[in-house]
Amino acid sequence: MVLKMDRLPIELPKPKNPSANDAAAVQELLGGKFGEMSTLMNYTYQSFNFRGRNRLRPYYDVISSIAGEEYGHIEVVSYSINLLLTGTAKRGMDPQLGPLKDSTNYRNTRHFIASGQSSLPMDSMGDWWTGQNVFSSGNLKLDLLHNFFLECGARGNKMRVYEMVTDPTAREMVGYLLVRGGVHIVAYARALEHLTGVQVTKLVPVPDLDNRAFPETRKYEDQGVHRRLYTFSPSDYQQAGIIFNGPHPEDGQPLEVVFGAPEGVPAPDLEEEPQVNAAGAFDVDPEMFKDIAKKIGVEV
Amino acid sequence: MVLKMDRLPIELPKPKNPSANDAAAVQELLGGKFGEMSTLMNYTYQSFNFRGRNRLRPYYDVISSIAGEEYGHIEVVSYSINLLLTGTAKRGMDPQLGPLKDSTNYRNTRHFIASGQSSLPMDSMGDWWTGQNVFSSGNLKLDLLHNFFLECGARGNKMRVYEMVTDPTAREMVGYLLVRGGVHIVAYARALEHLTGVQVTKLVPVPDLDNRAFPETRKYEDQGVHRRLYTFSPSDYQQAGIIFNGPHPEDGQPLEVVFGAPEGVPAPDLEEEPQVNAAGAFDVDPEMFKDIAKKIGVEV
Amino acid sequence: MVLKMDRLPIELPKPKNPSANDAAAVQELLGGKFGEMSTLMNYTYQSFNFRGRNRLRPYYDVISSIAGEEYGHIEVVSYSINLLLTGTAKRGMDPQLGPLKDSTNYRNTRHFIASGQSSLPMDSMGDWWTGQNVFSSGNLKLDLLHNFFLECGARGNKMRVYEMVTDPTAREMVGYLLVRGGVHIVAYARALEHLTGVQVTKLVPVPDLDNRAFPETRKYEDQGVHRRLYTFSPSDYQQAGIIFNGPHPEDGQPLEVVFGAPEGVPAPDLEEEPQVNAAGAFDVDPEMFKDIAKKIGVEV
Amino acid sequence: MVLKMDRLPIELPKPKNPSANDAAAVQELLGGKFGEMSTLMNYTYQSFNFRGRNRLRPYYDVISSIAGEEYGHIEVVSYSINLLLTGTAKRGMDPQLGPLKDSTNYRNTRHFIASGQSSLPMDSMGDWWTGQNVFSSGNLKLDLLHNFFLECGARGNKMRVYEMVTDPTAREMVGYLLVRGGVHIVAYARALEHLTGVQVTKLVPVPDLDNRAFPETRKYEDQGVHRRLYTFSPSDYQQAGIIFNGPHPEDGQPLEVVFGAPEGVPAPDLEEEPQVNAAGAFDVDPEMFKDIAKKIGVEV
Amino acid sequence: MVLKMDRLPIELPKPKNPSANDAAAVQELLGGKFGEMSTLMNYTYQSFNFRGRNRLRPYYDVISSIAGEEYGHIEVVSYSINLLLTGTAKRGMDPQLGPLKDSTNYRNTRHFIASGQSSLPMDSMGDWWTGQNVFSSGNLKLDLLHNFFLECGARGNKMRVYEMVTDPTAREMVGYLLVRGGVHIVAYARALEHLTGVQVTKLVPVPDLDNRAFPETRKYEDQGVHRRLYTFSPSDYQQAGIIFNGPHPEDGQPLEVVFGAPEGVPAPDLEEEPQVNAAGAFDVDPEMFKDIAKKIGVEV
Amino acid sequence: MVLKMDRLPIELPKPKNPSANDAAAVQELLGGKFGEMSTLMNYTYQSFNFRGRNRLRPYYDVISSIAGEEYGHIEVVSYSINLLLTGTAKRGMDPQLGPLKDSTNYRNTRHFIASGQSSLPMDSMGDWWTGQNVFSSGNLKLDLLHNFFLECGARGNKMRVYEMVTDPTAREMVGYLLVRGGVHIVAYARALEHLTGVQVTKLVPVPDLDNRAFPETRKYEDQGVHRRLYTFSPSDYQQAGIIFNGPHPEDGQPLEVVFGAPEGVPAPDLEEEPQVNAAGAFDVDPEMFKDIAKKIGVEV
Repeated sequence: MVLKMDRLPIELPKPKNPSANDAAAVQELLGGKFGEMSTLMNYTYQSFNFRGRNRLRPYYDVISSIAGEEYGHIEVVSYSINLLLTGTAKRGMDPQLGPLKDSTNYRNTRHFIASGQSSLPMDSMGDWWTGQNVFSSGNLKLDLLHNFFLECGARGNKMRVYEMVTDPTAREMVGYLLVRGGVHIVAYARALEHLTGVQVTKLVPVPDLDNRAFPETRKYEDQGVHRRLYTFSPSDYQQAGIIFNGPHPEDGQPLEVVFGAPEGVPAPDLEEEPQVNAAGAFDVDPEMFKDIAKKIGVEV
Repeated sequence: MVLKMDRLPIELPKPKNPSANDAAAVQELLGGKFGEMSTLMNYTYQSFNFRGRNRLRPYYDVISSIAGEEYGHIEVVSYSINLLLTGTAKRGMDPQLGPLKDSTNYRNTRHFIASGQSSLPMDSMGDWWTGQNVFSSGNLKLDLLHNFFLECGARGNKMRVYEMVTDPTAREMVGYLLVRGGVHIVAYARALEHLTGVQVTKLVPVPDLDNRAFPETRKYEDQGVHRRLYTFSPSDYQQAGIIFNGPHPEDGQPLEVVFGAPEGVPAPDLEEEPQVNAAGAFDVDPEMFKDIAKKIGVEV
Repeated sequence: MVLKMDRLPIELPKPKNPSANDAAAVQELLGGKFGEMSTLMNYTYQSFNFRGRNRLRPYYDVISSIAGEEYGHIEVVSYSINLLLTGTAKRGMDPQLGPLKDSTNYRNTRHFIASGQSSLPMDSMGDWWTGQNVFSSGNLKLDLLHNFFLECGARGNKMRVYEMVTDPTAREMVGYLLVRGGVHIVAYARALEHLTGVQVTKLVPVPDLDNRAFPETRKYEDQGVHRRLYTFSPSDYQQAGIIFNGPHPEDGQPLEVVFGAPEGVPAPDLEEEPQVNAAGAFDVDPEMFKDIAKKIGVEV
Repeated sequence: MVLKMDRLPIELPKPKNPSANDAAAVQELLGGKFGEMSTLMNYTYQSFNFRGRNRLRPYYDVISSIAGEEYGHIEVVSYSINLLLTGTAKRGMDPQLGPLKDSTNYRNTRHFIASGQSSLPMDSMGDWWTGQNVFSSGNLKLDLLHNFFLECGARGNKMRVYEMVTDPTAREMVGYLLVRGGVHIVAYARALEHLTGVQVTKLVPVPDLDNRAFPETRKYEDQGVHRRLYTFSPSDYQQAGIIFNGPHPEDGQPLEVVFGAPEGVPAPDLEEEPQVNAAGAFDVDPEMFKDIAKKIGVEV
Repeated sequence: MVLKMDRLPIELPKPKNPSANDAAAVQELLGGKFGEMSTLMNYTYQSFNFRGRNRLRPYYDVISSIAGEEYGHIEVVSYSINLLLTGTAKRGMDPQLGPLKDSTNYRNTRHFIASGQSSLPMDSMGDWWTGQNVFSSGNLKLDLLHNFFLECGARGNKMRVYEMVTDPTAREMVGYLLVRGGVHIVAYARALEHLTGVQVTKLVPVPDLDNRAFPETRKYEDQGVHRRLYTFSPSDYQQAGIIFNGPHPEDGQPLEVVFGAPEGVPAPDLEEEPQVNAAGAFDVDPEMFKDIAKKIGVEV
Repeated sequence: MVLKMDRLPIELPKPKNPSANDAAAVQELLGGKFGEMSTLMNYTYQSFNFRGRNRLRPYYDVISSIAGEEYGHIEVVSYSINLLLTGTAKRGMDPQLGPLKDSTNYRNTRHFIASGQSSLPMDSMGDWWTGQNVFSSGNLKLDLLHNFFLECGARGNKMRVYEMVTDPTAREMVGYLLVRGGVHIVAYARALEHLTGVQVTKLVPVPDLDNRAFPETRKYEDQGVHRRLYTFSPSDYQQAGIIFNGPHPEDGQPLEVVFGAPEGVPAPDLEEEPQVNAAGAFDVDPEMFKDIAKKIGVEV
């Protein structure tokens, strides 16, 4: 089970230039083969399916902790997409004016027909995320090797999307994910090191370019975000630290396990887009809510 | 963001007869069009994508609360599958004996080749779950209508899988999900009632057969589980109660919003299946863990 | 069995501006999850699969009548696409001039490579229509609820495509389909009302915006097209009127079942596109046809 | 547009041995790459997309006539599947008894979970039919060559399914379709002959085995069903006879175009399967129907 | 088994205007339903699966020879795509400058995210090639008819892509493939003639337009490339000539089987694209290679 | 380009018990995500797409050599499947007897409907191989890491299929592939070592179980097959030895590059299956072949 919090891991700046095609590109990081849906679901299923966890608890705890974090990653990518799409059509309720006219030339029409100018679990070509992206062999060594590769592949995708999209909303998000993905790479490399004695952490970075080439990563690295693994749990997965420890392979600072989640910030309210009837519900009377709220003792 | 807990909503009995074909059938409730992956991802994306939430907060809170619960549902279905698969092959490490010989005649070979006798996000035909199953139009009225239909469709699938699989592990799980899915049906029906004034809750049950025909549901209903909506959050989504209130449409008892999650039970340790090298890692020395654990002050 | 007529339900104006990207957008209404292929095939399979039809004939007749109409809908959407694509490439038979040069920048290359500048059963992203879109649970209540939802979802898609494409060919077609789809919404709502006593028709319109916001609908509504259900059959499905009757939920005018189909208009001849060898067959001698026609007594 | 008739082209005997696995095999002829959904949709889209039909009308009429017939073919295959599935589960409304228990071992669980023991547009592996199966290049010569090949491929599939399934329901249906598919093969071969002067009809039969090896075909051939092309239209497509004429390539009898459709027989009523709640709707009172029927002057 | 040669069948000119959208269009000829992946894999599997080859060796040898050639065709299409993509982004290693900025507006983002500005087995819509495109019925007559149709369909696609892309790299490649595909059409037509006595070669060209309308084909035809079938084998498949002989159906010149492969030219070295880290590996010291090469006696 | 040889890498024994379900399981090694189609196509596309090969030739040569070998692997898996399927139906040409009756209960009906009891590019669930399985990022380090992981994943699949299928045909083939796949694992590990200095070869074996547990591997290892990389080329890719050298990580014997291919054995003739008309072509007169052969000077 999880407890859901109405908070994002980081504050996302408003886009300078809302752009449907930028949003379409960012979808790769959400629903692509190497997107956050994939990392989330790989580790989630590996945690459900882990056999022999009593014997191998610290490995289980590393995988489960990262599984917990990935939920916040699909969330922050989705919000970036949603912000990039906000305001990309001419607002208004009169269909006759063709308020979505420009969208026939955008790359991803699903953002305008299937969704209310918002994210869906698909990639930058509009192909749906699929469970085929989940690898869960049950063999610990193989699963860890997979996860290490998956995170490196995901890093390659993030780097390229960064090079495609210059808007600050997207770049802030990618910068943060490069840092956090970097933690996961180290965590899985460390786990393989524990299991085999081979110094897998020395392989980083894959691809060869360093995170510091991406300026948005720096403030996070200065805060030590790149060397902290969160358990993302009220009280479980605390044996992750048996594996995740020692010096960071790139700057030598100590790796550290933090119980719980980062504090984060409140999720932004997304503006309405009346031309796509999102959210519609024009007649709802907020006063009515207040009355009931009072009765049941809830703050509105 | 979420906090992940190493707990299942309910205690699952051990299967009486582990069965690969039963497990294959139960996959429908995990990765089918109407499975828990679908309900989880529908409400999750609707919560990320909700426009105008300040104006329409109680609806947002209902959807988000249910999104939180669904994670526990993919978990409990996965564990049921994993338990049904545990022991379905002859245990042993000598490949020459053909320990997986019987599995060539089972319906879903992925359980034996791709995974370590464990669940994957696919349906009862082995087809992968896909993001195409996510509906998130952004129009509140349409999304609520969809969710009401989705839950009714999911209910139909649960009823039929119950009729297919008689093993107590699966039936306990289905019984529980029928009750909890019933809460979601009522919640979305109530939301539509609020929005339109039409008495949508009167449509239940869809399909026509009552939950009470499934004996495993009864103890949950006797405990009132069928009339409680949990926020599945440490402190958010509390305005759900503005919508989810009044009498239950079937037995007239009061609907109730509970802050947080049910207590649940610890996730079971799954036995190893050495013939599929799950988990393998034969050389790991648990003593080594203890040493490090001591050093970093973690209990093992 | 069916009898096919070389007629469309309405006269389609010639496009003002043939446009490949407009045509690509309109494909959503043909082969999208909520397109006419989906409505056609859902009701078609539900009619084939209906169990207990002797006991429940009026419901069977409603579903079958609408199934009959949907064929004309895939037809009218296809023709709209075909007309929008006619003339979008430089006509001519010399490949060296690159007559399809512009199409590398259009969204849907299938219109120029796979087809002869014409429609295919795919959506606005070029994804193929799939049988996965067919819901046929066999449970009457659930199927009717599905159909009601499907038609509302389809309505949302039509509204948005209308807002994307301003060309009169497309808008005439969408206007007509909004009206006819509206009839289907009411028909399924009425069927649910009969079955349950809940006033489902009161939920319309979903999404909230009224058809009258789309000017092309008005002439049809003035003619009463929005309150007539056709049986689309020479002599069957006449019990549909046992369900489809009473006042229209929006304007209170009487709902009415008409035996047979609307008169319609002849299907337009589509101009040749020699640069894509469509139709090619340059050597065919029409005189030869005349001779044989005479012999076998057929008019040419 | 079409007019739908509540009639099947032939009388289907009741199965001797209802069989879920036989039904699963027959699905290939419905939703497989070479199934009736494919032939229906190929010719339907080719008819919508035909450019230059004024110049090439007889070819258009051949394609359109066959398109009309194929609807009856998806219908007759669906009914065969439905009849084969009727009674394959233990009837009853008590889920506790596990009335669908056997179905966990059947090949296609969709027949028991997604549908009410009835057909869906999928193939013998449960893969959904897809629009990717539609070929509509717009080039007449290429489309005719495709259609000739498609019908030969379909013939191969029918022959093999016949060899798999010995039940009389399926064999009667396959026998009929072999004969009618044979007509289509000849029709497309004739069209190519007209266009090119090459004696394409001489290529039949493909595969090499003769229809007379399948005893169920004989009565149809004795009635001349193998040499008649129906227009399946009240008054259109009559120029088909300009192409479809001359001696049949196998027995030399005259090819003939018949205006309209064969008479057919009423579609059978399918028994209810209460254990899958198909149709459910237990409370419907048929008397109520009678009252309304009387009022609106419809016979029940 | 095969022996791989680092050579292409023809010299490809450098593109005049590298173009991502041209490259995207050319993908149809690689990974489309009628692309070279399809021809390669169809004949490859038919050769593996051929039953009764001792009795029917010459047919087996024709199919196998062509299977051998198709590998060089996926190669030459891939290189064309790679060349068209070379230089389509601003070169450089600083991600901050957004070197891939333009690619958000290109049709196929996979070329910039998934690959290093290079080809993938997908079509012009970015849809992956799939094994569903392989037809291998095992019936010789049907397989040959399929292959004849497949090559005609492929020819239609090549003609249209030629009309879309005017760059000399692409046109040189298409010109060559039109000629070589023409050989395959004749080969399969000849095989059908042998089997049935029907003059299938007389059907060419399909579509109707002659290869000579494409100027790049002429030099190849002048060299007789259009009438030579290579065995693409050191010493096998030599009975192909039992079938492939006689006059070419279009110009009457003698058909000829050549043992082995054409000479070809060395595969071009593709320039690096540092902005996508392709190839990266910045630290590799070529001197180090030389030392080892010397030691093991290999030329570098 | 390639030269195709009518030879398999090893002699395959005849199956002891032809078995359709065993064949269905073995398909995973052909068309599964980790099957030989995947390894073949990954390295093939990486070789086409390699940027900067002049600078990085030895890496290019390693990848290209392995790409060459994989063709023989799809071949040997296909033949194993074909042999396992030979004789699984009652032979005969009379369809009335239902010669394929048993196949309705087999797992993969495509072997009996789509193919002539032979292989297709699909996995053990009948899902088609797809180009989505190709990873070709263009970044050398990432591609090598991928390839190392892919081969380990493939090894896991082979181990499990070995445990499922006890027939000697399949086991001989899997034994051989375990050995050859082992060479590829070492080759990619060595390449990563060269690039990074990290001792990646020490990670083997992944999964943990040693090849020697599979008796069929032993004779190959005794012959040194596990330490030889073939260039599979008449004269190219010879710099592979700059990377592939040093001691084998498991037994310390010297790694070695061999120019060319192993000798192999002639491909077996597959018996006809007349009940599926494979190959059909009953009238072909082999004498006729001899006459032409004589004329053109080819041995038959």
